[in-house]
Amino acid sequence: MENFEFYSPARLIFGKGTENTIGQQLKPYAKKVLLHYGGGSIKKTGLYDRVVASLNEAGVAFVELGGVQPNPRLKLAQEGIDLCRRENVDLILAVGGGSVIDSAKCIAMGVCYDGDVWDMYQQGKAIEKALPVAVILTIPAAGSEASGDTVITNEDKALKYGYGSPKLRPLMSVMNPELFYTLPKNQVANGVTDMMSHVFERYFTNTKSVELTDGLCETVLRTIMHNAPRVLKNAEDYDAWCEIGFAGTVAHNGLVGCGRAQDWGCHNMEHELSAIYDVAHGAGLAVLTPAWMTYVWKDNPEMFVQFAVKVMGVDGSYREPEAIITEGIEKLRAFFTAIGQPATLTELGIGEDRLEEMARKATHECFGKEQPIGGLKKLYWQDVLAIYKLAL
Amino acid sequence: MENFEFYSPARLIFGKGTENTIGQQLKPYAKKVLLHYGGGSIKKTGLYDRVVASLNEAGVAFVELGGVQPNPRLKLAQEGIDLCRRENVDLILAVGGGSVIDSAKCIAMGVCYDGDVWDMYQQGKAIEKALPVAVILTIPAAGSEASGDTVITNEDKALKYGYGSPKLRPLMSVMNPELFYTLPKNQVANGVTDMMSHVFERYFTNTKSVELTDGLCETVLRTIMHNAPRVLKNAEDYDAWCEIGFAGTVAHNGLVGCGRAQDWGCHNMEHELSAIYDVAHGAGLAVLTPAWMTYVWKDNPEMFVQFAVKVMGVDGSYREPEAIITEGIEKLRAFFTAIGQPATLTELGIGEDRLEEMARKATHECFGKEQPIGGLKKLYWQDVLAIYKLAL
Repeated sequence: MENFEFYSPARLIFGKGTENTIGQQLKPYAKKVLLHYGGGSIKKTGLYDRVVASLNEAGVAFVELGGVQPNPRLKLAQEGIDLCRRENVDLILAVGGGSVIDSAKCIAMGVCYDGDVWDMYQQGKAIEKALPVAVILTIPAAGSEASGDTVITNEDKALKYGYGSPKLRPLMSVMNPELFYTLPKNQVANGVTDMMSHVFERYFTNTKSVELTDGLCETVLRTIMHNAPRVLKNAEDYDAWCEIGFAGTVAHNGLVGCGRAQDWGCHNMEHELSAIYDVAHGAGLAVLTPAWMTYVWKDNPEMFVQFAVKVMGVDGSYREPEAIITEGIEKLRAFFTAIGQPATLTELGIGEDRLEEMARKATHECFGKEQPIGGLKKLYWQDVLAIYKLAL
Repeated sequence: MENFEFYSPARLIFGKGTENTIGQQLKPYAKKVLLHYGGGSIKKTGLYDRVVASLNEAGVAFVELGGVQPNPRLKLAQEGIDLCRRENVDLILAVGGGSVIDSAKCIAMGVCYDGDVWDMYQQGKAIEKALPVAVILTIPAAGSEASGDTVITNEDKALKYGYGSPKLRPLMSVMNPELFYTLPKNQVANGVTDMMSHVFERYFTNTKSVELTDGLCETVLRTIMHNAPRVLKNAEDYDAWCEIGFAGTVAHNGLVGCGRAQDWGCHNMEHELSAIYDVAHGAGLAVLTPAWMTYVWKDNPEMFVQFAVKVMGVDGSYREPEAIITEGIEKLRAFFTAIGQPATLTELGIGEDRLEEMARKATHECFGKEQPIGGLKKLYWQDVLAIYKLAL
């Protein structure tokens, strides 16, 4: 096990009716909040009205900024930063999924920074301060409700970059799984895929003697895979939604990756797809992950045997590891297909023409200083290109 | 799944050499700390000198109070409270195991409270404030390094009571598994038993649809049971100690109990043994837990089948659940014996004479208002007495 720090201070407030307590919860921390949300679905479902009522009742003032898109845009966040400064906002309340939360974190640090907030994403600058962020989660997926990470798309440059700091971990996250009932099936599938990938990126490692976190990863993955078909079959299965929602948080609050070298190759490769083609992050991951596994497993076959047996339930002869591994990858592919995900880049409308450009961007090769991505196997731009091609 | 809040803000700083950073870690939070420790083993091992050097180097002043005993005493904590007030201490640094940390928490809240700190334990009063507590862990066991709980023995009244508040969760906990190399084998066994019990108390529940936390509990238990014999065989097995140490924290930081009705019957029954006979908490738990299982399993046989199969690895016919359950309990008993724990109260030198007194105290029956203990099965004083007798 490697040395590590684990710090996950976000208070998770979980269960039926919890969103109606948001005003009381925020009162000790904020006089005026920015209510930040997406395309307006929270108005259709009545959530917006309940949140506003709760804030009013508690005497917490607010200004609002809606319009966050999937793959959240830098420009809107910059608008939010100006608004917060003008209005003396002291806390950002994100009501939505990962995109809204990531946008909120971008605003939260931008308000406290003198330059352009893109500096952080571009240069990885450390931040000294950020406004607190609170969350009401409407899409279980990104795990952003517990993490200190944010991913933003710079639409002018067609770049999608991530940034992380412990100072960006939300103060609190409210999760009522009933709010997930109205999600369209493709968003459910994308969310499930994303949270599985958050575990995969930590699970697949060359670090040895990480038995506890191996087991935690495996149980989170099995729980997600058992419950995803249940919520897709019955959108109002509260118990199954509880498992999915809670698993999505545990998948990304840092715990299951403690003491392990991590990978993040698939996430990095997928960000290029989303930046150029604006495909859903989950759909991109569903296509790339099995291709990545096929490309890299020979670098650590023992790890992939363990995955096949303990996560995918493959029951074969350990004397034929390749057969076990291949069956594990096939079963994962079949799972993604069963929840409605595409299996190829072609299905996503992506052809060969820009693969090389994306591979060079993913590894920063095109910026003159190549940084290989991935952990279990270091991926240079030629490797990334080969994986994209396997996924066609 | 039941509604829940999960809040575990303690920063875990884990791995080799981490104790030498304590001065730097504390500097932003404290001008003067109380260095609180036990019987002086930290002086023999050189840990005391390293901690003092780190504090001096960072310019963090300190006063000290040693002498914490296992089953920590109220009187010493009261002495610590006076000392902290006199010296304007602003943070308590506990260097030790659960007893030292629990004593530190008692001091931390006592300093900020006008009356007698025993009020909290006796009456369960809510606290408004406490000094921050930091920890350097020397015994993986109690999980107190992540929890908001403290247990104190009032030696005048022969009462051992617990108290919990989110305000008592440590600010940070430093864990270098190398510090565990010098622990005597019986302390290792007691620590392992205690952390297993922290999971059991959460695992055994009648709450349904708690698949994720079921799985988390099971993987923590399997990890502990796999690695305990390894550290008992080779006291310097760093990898195995990492698993045990980290598992002890996860067992008690609240995560594995989220959304579940919990039990705590065995802990409550054991506190009576420790209060009267001053037996080690872990030894008491090792004796009582299998007896408790034997007494209660008929109230939820499905839960105990799951335990036998998924935790103890019993591979029998599901058409004979009683056989599976009995084998599971026997395997647990055998595990405790293998790590050197006693199997009966008799081995602990405890006879029949005070069992009824303890049963009436455990349930507060003797104070005129009986409060049954336990969750999976409510235990009245006659039930507790029956379990004590089964354990003779």
